[in-house]
Order: sequence, then structure tokens, then C-alpha cells
Amino acid sequence: MKRSELVAQIRLKKSMLCVGLDTNISLIPEFLRHKPDAIFQFNKAIVDATIDYAVAYKPNIAFYESMGISGWQALEQTVSYIRSLNRPIFLLADAKRGDIGNTSKMYAKTFFEQMDFDAVTVAPYMGEDSVTPFLEYKDKWVIVLGLTSNKGASDFQFLEFDGKPLYEHVITKVQQWGSPENLMFVVGATQTKYIEHIRSIAKDYFFLVPGVGAQGGSLEDVCEYGMNTDFGLLINSTRDIIYASGGDDFADIAGQKAKAMQTSMQKFLK
Amino acid sequence: MKRSELVAQIRLKKSMLCVGLDTNISLIPEFLRHKPDAIFQFNKAIVDATIDYAVAYKPNIAFYESMGISGWQALEQTVSYIRSLNRPIFLLADAKRGDIGNTSKMYAKTFFEQMDFDAVTVAPYMGEDSVTPFLEYKDKWVIVLGLTSNKGASDFQFLEFDGKPLYEHVITKVQQWGSPENLMFVVGATQTKYIEHIRSIAKDYFFLVPGVGAQGGSLEDVCEYGMNTDFGLLINSTRDIIYASGGDDFADIAGQKAKAMQTSMQKFLK
Repeated sequence: MKRSELVAQIRLKKSMLCVGLDTNISLIPEFLRHKPDAIFQFNKAIVDATIDYAVAYKPNIAFYESMGISGWQALEQTVSYIRSLNRPIFLLADAKRGDIGNTSKMYAKTFFEQMDFDAVTVAPYMGEDSVTPFLEYKDKWVIVLGLTSNKGASDFQFLEFDGKPLYEHVITKVQQWGSPENLMFVVGATQTKYIEHIRSIAKDYFFLVPGVGAQGGSLEDVCEYGMNTDFGLLINSTRDIIYASGGDDFADIAGQKAKAMQTSMQKFLK
Repeated sequence: MKRSELVAQIRLKKSMLCVGLDTNISLIPEFLRHKPDAIFQFNKAIVDATIDYAVAYKPNIAFYESMGISGWQALEQTVSYIRSLNRPIFLLADAKRGDIGNTSKMYAKTFFEQMDFDAVTVAPYMGEDSVTPFLEYKDKWVIVLGLTSNKGASDFQFLEFDGKPLYEHVITKVQQWGSPENLMFVVGATQTKYIEHIRSIAKDYFFLVPGVGAQGGSLEDVCEYGMNTDFGLLINSTRDIIYASGGDDFADIAGQKAKAMQTSMQKFLK
């Protein structure tokens, strides 16, 4: 998906919502759990119920891998199903990959050729040749970890070099390898006091923002400090939507939760 | 596998060799390429030919993922085959994973429960909660990226904080989360002038050393500067062994190359 299409979708749906598909067999409703394609059926129902309020979906690859081959089947089915709807959806693989050039090239092949994702999350530790193979695909994106939402972010990301924290070096350096048309950054919603600064060093870039809701981040703060003139945010919510109900009504409740988040975002999207 | 067993295997085989299984359908011999289980057949032949000279195998997960479900099948078959031999082999998944705690837990499940690997490579950028879920498994290992062998290593790993490069902060900090019984570090063979220093800050830890051969690292330098009293090294070789011949004799030639590397190592293993 091109940047202009993503911006148009946000404007149309009045939403920056990305729904995380961290689908865990032990957390989905009991009545689905024993079906052979339980994971796919759950994802399909969630997508159907939320697609009017979301511009993006983010399967978390770990959850599928952990089930082996049947997990990969469910992931491929989910991607195919979303594409079969013929609606412009930004589909991102939350995979945190990154390796030497010839290996990152294989990861890019996985998510951009084997499956039709628009974007992959990538860890920056190994530097340029671990990131650039993903950028060779037209209209595909790399979403590089900048400042993450978890407690462990403080172990290395705030170490200061020449008066600037590591995450700032990462966000500045990585911009040399791509452009706002094919690069985004992960900026955790729990890091609100840094979002304004990060926006100032990456003005035109989209940020993927996890951590609103279950992890404690505030939607209002993220919008106030993180938006740019093209909106510039994809705000992820997972557990608060997909596991809001564990009963037969899980899809309806997920739809209501997604709609409520979209409504909260709408006032920032005038 | 316990550390004491790994050390015993190195002593017994007089080898620190780890054979990388970066199996690429377009690089395996023509006569195998069109078989339905070509990847597994290739891996099986390589393992059979090299197992007397190697203590470890390292499938590179990207190469399997890039083929979708058939790739995961080949990976699972390869792991099962190696385990079926009932020989003490250290089996490591080169996956460069790492995410927030609940997600790293899923990656640990993938490689330690879904498949019977001994170790997984993990990227350190997200800090403690991205690493520790892997350490909760008895006799399983995390191999954290320290100083990598690729060109991009220079983008962030050498940034200096308080007079010490990032990779040193990583290697020092990560030691607080585990022990030489369940933690190793990736130290690239192309970084020989730093290996001696890294050994001084991580005396008792095993290092996984990629980059000998095709990437330009010297076996002699790695052994001279990197070994400790328990050997302390797993030295990986991939392309120089598995793709040494593209003909019908690929397995024989791979065996000869592995034997030659083992012979070169032997003089350091007295």
C-alpha cells in the first residue's frame, strides 16, 4: 500500500486503529477452541466485526509460529481472507526480524512474497544490511523499532551517546536508508513524554504505536503529541478488543470496542 | 543440553564446529531440487556426512519460513531426524527473535516445545523481558547478539556510552539475567580484534562465532583470542561446507570440508 492510500483510508474511516491479532488458542472462546481451524475462524470473526473501524491489522507472528504448521496455515488463511475482501487494508506482520543481508532478504520474501503483507517490524541492532533488503520491494514497508513500550526498553534504548539516547540515534540513522514512503517507527504509547520529541526528529514518518490500553498508554496523549499533518499514527490495540469478551458474543463486543476506539480517535482527525 | 555435556562433546569430537543449515532451494544440487521433500533430503545428507565432525547444527529459520508451510515441514523434519539419531547434538535455531514478554514466551514455545531445539538466537534491543522468557526452560539456551559479523554492526554496536561501546553494555548487562549455563553470545569472526576484549568481559560464556570462511573471518585468530578453559566457542561454517559442491557429490564434499575444519580446530583443542 502506498502512503497516500493509507492517509486516504485514515481520512475516510476517521480512524488510525490497528487491530492486533495475537490469537492464542487458550484465550479464544471455548465454543471455538476445538474446531480444526479455530484460530482462523476467530480471526475471521474479529476482522468482519472490526473492519469498518480499523485501517490496519497486525498479526503477531509468534502466536502462529508457536502452533507449528497449523499456526502457519491459520496465518496464511487470515492474510488471504483479508485480501479476499478487496478493501484497502494495511496488513503488517509483527515479527521483529532482522539478520545479515542474505538472511533479511529471506525474511522479506516470507512476508512480501510468500504472504501478502504490506509491512514487517524489524529490530535495528544489526544495522543497515539487516534493514535494507525489506526496502527493495515497491509499496512495502519496514517498521523499525524505535522506542518500545515494554519495561526492558530502559535497558539499552536510553543509553546516551553524545548526549542523545540510543533510540534517537536509531531513528535518525535509519532515515538515511529509506523515506516516509517506505519506513515507519515503533514508538510505544507508554513513552508519551518522549513522543513529542520523537515527532520532532521524524516529522513526516508514520509511527506504529502499541501499548494503548492493556499496557497503560493514553490515546489522548499519543494523539496530542504524536500526530503530524498526514495523521502519522497507526495506533494498535489488541487485548482490549479481541479478548474483550470470552463468550459467544466475542465478535460483537470486539466490534463495539473497536467502534469506541474509532470514536475516541475521531475528534483528533478533523 | 547441559553445558557439561556440550564441553564433553567438544572434547570427544575434538571439534567446536557448528554447521549452518541455510538451505536454499535454488542453491541445492539440481538432481534434488524437484523432489517434494528436497530441503529435508539435502539436510539429511549433510547431517549424515558431517555429524562425526560437528558438535552443533544451526538451521537459519529465515530460509525455511520463506518457503511457507513446506519450509516449516522441512524444518520440523530436520529437527526430528537429528534427534532420532540419538547422538548428543547441540541444535540451535538461528532466528534472531525478541519481543515484549508475552510474545517472547510464544517464541520460546515455538523453538523449545513445538520443536526440540537447545538454543535460540535473540536480539537484545528490547531488553530484559524480551530475553528472560527463553531462560525459564531447563537446559535450554539463549544466544544473545553481542557483536555481529556483518557490515551493519558498525551502525549502532560501536556507539560509545560512558566510554564503552553498546555491544559491551549488552554483553555485561545480559549476564545479570542468566549464567554461563544458559546464556551465550554471538561474536562475529570478522571482529577478531575485539574478541580478546569480549572474552575478558565474559570469561566463562560460550560464544557462537559466525563469519569464518565466506564472510572472511580467520579460524586461527578466533581460537587464539576467543577460547577459554572450557573451550568456550561454537564456530559456525555454512556456505563453505553445505555448498562446497553443487553436484551429486555434495554430501561427500561437505563431509570432507567439515573434516578439514575439524582437523584445523584439533590443534587448539589439546
